[in-house]
Amino acid sequence: MADSSNPSAASTPESFPVTFADVEAAAARLEGVAHRTPVMTSRTADARAEGRLFFKCENLQRGGAFKFRGAYNAVAALSEGQRRQGVIAYSSGNHAQAVALAGRLQGVATTIVMPKDAPGAKVSATREYGGEIIFYDRYTENREEICAALAAERGATVIPPYDHPQVIAGQGTAARELFGAAGELDVLLVSLGGGGLLAGSALAAQALSPRCRVIGVEPEAGNDGQQSFRAGHVIRIPVPRSIADGALTTHLGENNFSIIQALVHEVVTVTDGMLVETMRFFAERMKIVVEPTGCLGAAAAFSKQHHRPGERVGILISGGNVDPTTYADLLRRATGAQV
Amino acid sequence: MADSSNPSAASTPESFPVTFADVEAAAARLEGVAHRTPVMTSRTADARAEGRLFFKCENLQRGGAFKFRGAYNAVAALSEGQRRQGVIAYSSGNHAQAVALAGRLQGVATTIVMPKDAPGAKVSATREYGGEIIFYDRYTENREEICAALAAERGATVIPPYDHPQVIAGQGTAARELFGAAGELDVLLVSLGGGGLLAGSALAAQALSPRCRVIGVEPEAGNDGQQSFRAGHVIRIPVPRSIADGALTTHLGENNFSIIQALVHEVVTVTDGMLVETMRFFAERMKIVVEPTGCLGAAAAFSKQHHRPGERVGILISGGNVDPTTYADLLRRATGAQV
Repeated sequence: MADSSNPSAASTPESFPVTFADVEAAAARLEGVAHRTPVMTSRTADARAEGRLFFKCENLQRGGAFKFRGAYNAVAALSEGQRRQGVIAYSSGNHAQAVALAGRLQGVATTIVMPKDAPGAKVSATREYGGEIIFYDRYTENREEICAALAAERGATVIPPYDHPQVIAGQGTAARELFGAAGELDVLLVSLGGGGLLAGSALAAQALSPRCRVIGVEPEAGNDGQQSFRAGHVIRIPVPRSIADGALTTHLGENNFSIIQALVHEVVTVTDGMLVETMRFFAERMKIVVEPTGCLGAAAAFSKQHHRPGERVGILISGGNVDPTTYADLLRRATGAQV
Repeated sequence: MADSSNPSAASTPESFPVTFADVEAAAARLEGVAHRTPVMTSRTADARAEGRLFFKCENLQRGGAFKFRGAYNAVAALSEGQRRQGVIAYSSGNHAQAVALAGRLQGVATTIVMPKDAPGAKVSATREYGGEIIFYDRYTENREEICAALAAERGATVIPPYDHPQVIAGQGTAARELFGAAGELDVLLVSLGGGGLLAGSALAAQALSPRCRVIGVEPEAGNDGQQSFRAGHVIRIPVPRSIADGALTTHLGENNFSIIQALVHEVVTVTDGMLVETMRFFAERMKIVVEPTGCLGAAAAFSKQHHRPGERVGILISGGNVDPTTYADLLRRATGAQV
C-alpha cells in the first residue's frame, strides 16, 4: 500500500469542466445503444489478488472498448448543423473505431486520422464501420495539427479521444454501471492513457462510492500521468514504447487532469511483462480476450500493492481490440507465472 | 439446407432413459452453484451467418465448460454411502475437471483417469480442484477397463463422461437456460462428442421449443455420430485425430443414442480449418476464448448450410479450456477467411 493519499481530493465538483450530472445525461443517451457489459468475477482471480475483484468487461462493449461510450455521447451532443458537416477523430485505434461506429449509428460522416502502425484489426474494423481513414506517422507527425487542418478545410468538428467534456462524461458511464452492479468498492483500478476513462470513473466514484480509492494504472514506460499527478501539472513525455498501445499518450488532457488531480487517489505503473501474464490469465482462466491496455488494472490488482487483503476491488477492463497474430505472440511470450 | 429430416422424431419421451423432468430436477440442483452463463449476440456474427445467432457461453461456466452441469448433477444424485466411497471419472479433460470440482464442492473424493496427451491446462486445473489423476495412453489402453478395475478395488462409483442419465440431465440445463433467455429458436447447433450435451439439449428443445431443429456438429475426422445416426445404431470408429479434443470419442453412448435418434434432426460435420477460423472469429470479434470443440456449432452456422437466411439459430459453445500455447498456435494458423 502506498501512503501517497491525495491532499486536494476535497475539491468541489462545481469547478470541473464536467460533473456527475453529465455522466448521468450520457448514461441516458447510451441506454439501449451501448451494451451494459457484464461484471465478471473469478474465484481464481480473487485468490491470486487476495481480494474480491469485480471486472467490468468493456472488452465486450460495442466496438470492443469503452471508447464507444464517449464517442457516441460526443456525437449525440452535436448540433444539427455540426452533424451535417461531419466529424473528425484521431486515435491509436479504439477511439477511431468508436467514432466511426457512433457516426454510422447517428448518420454522421466520419474521418479518422490513425497512426500507420495501428493494429490491423483496429484499422479494418474502423473501415468496416464506414470511417474514412487518413494515416500519419506517430513518431514524426502531429496528429492534432493534421486534424485541425482537415477540420478547417471541411468545416467538420473534431472529437478528441479524451480531452473533451462529453467524451469524459460518456466514459464515466462504465464505472457508473460497475457501482450499480457491484455496489460500493474499496478500490477502483483504471487504465490510464489520456485520462478519459480515469476522469469519468473518478466522477462516478465520487457520486456513487465516495470512499473508494480511484487509482490510475499506466505502463511503466509511459508514466506521464504519474509524473503529472505528482508534479501537480501536465507533464509531456516522448512517445512511449509499450505493448499497451492504447496508453501510448504523451500527456494527459487538461480537462482530464483537473478532475484526476482532484479526485484520484494515486497513479501507479505496471511492466509490460505483468501485462503479458495478466493477458494470459484472462485467456486461460476467464476465457476472455483482453488487449494489453485492458490488462493494466488487473495487473495492478495481481501485484497486491494497491489494496489490502480482502478488499473489494473494481477493475475496468478497457478493451479487447488486439490483432489475433499479435495476441498469439503475446500469449506465447507469457510463462504462466504469478505476476 | 439438408433434407434429411428424421422420421422417428415423433417417439414419445416416456421410453427414454432420461426425460425433461430430470433436466428440470438438475436445474434445481444447479441453481446458485453453476453459473447462469450469458447468451451473447453479435451483429458481425449475424451478418456472417445470415441469421440471428444466440451464443450460449458455456466457456464461461465454472470449470470452463458445460461439463460441470452434468458432473455436479451426477454427484448430487449419489446416495450417502456412495458419496463416502468416492467417485472415479475418465475423460479427455473437461469432464475430469468438472467431476473434480463437483467432488470438491460436495465433499466427495475424486479419482480422474486422463489421457497422457490431455492439454496441460486441463491437467493442472483438475489437480488444482483436488482430483487424484491417473494417466493412460488413449491410443493403446482402454479407459473404461482402467476405471472399472479402480472402482472394484476402491468401491467407488464411476461417473462416465456422457453415457449416464444424470449426466445427460445436467447437460440439458444449458439449452434450457438458452431457450429461457432467447425464446424459441429455429435451429440449435450443438457440439457432439459422446452425446451428453446433444441428448440433454434435445430434451430441452422438445419441451421448450418443439419446432426447433436440433443438429449435432462433429469434427469431420470423427464423424462416428453422423454414421451412427444414419445407420440407426451405434457405430464405433478408431480414435479420431482432430483439434477438437473434446470430441475425440469413438462412439456415442447408448443412453445418448436413443435420445439423439429420436429427437435430433441431423448430424453434420465441419473441418478443423473451419474450427480454427471460427476460433479466431471468437477472439477477434467477440473477445472470448473458445476451445476447438466449442467452435463446432458456430462453424456450422458460418457454413450457412444448416439454416435458412434470417432464422434464429442457437449455438452451444461447449467450453473454453485450451492451453494458451496451443491456442496461440491455432490463432496464428487462422487466416481470417470467412469459413
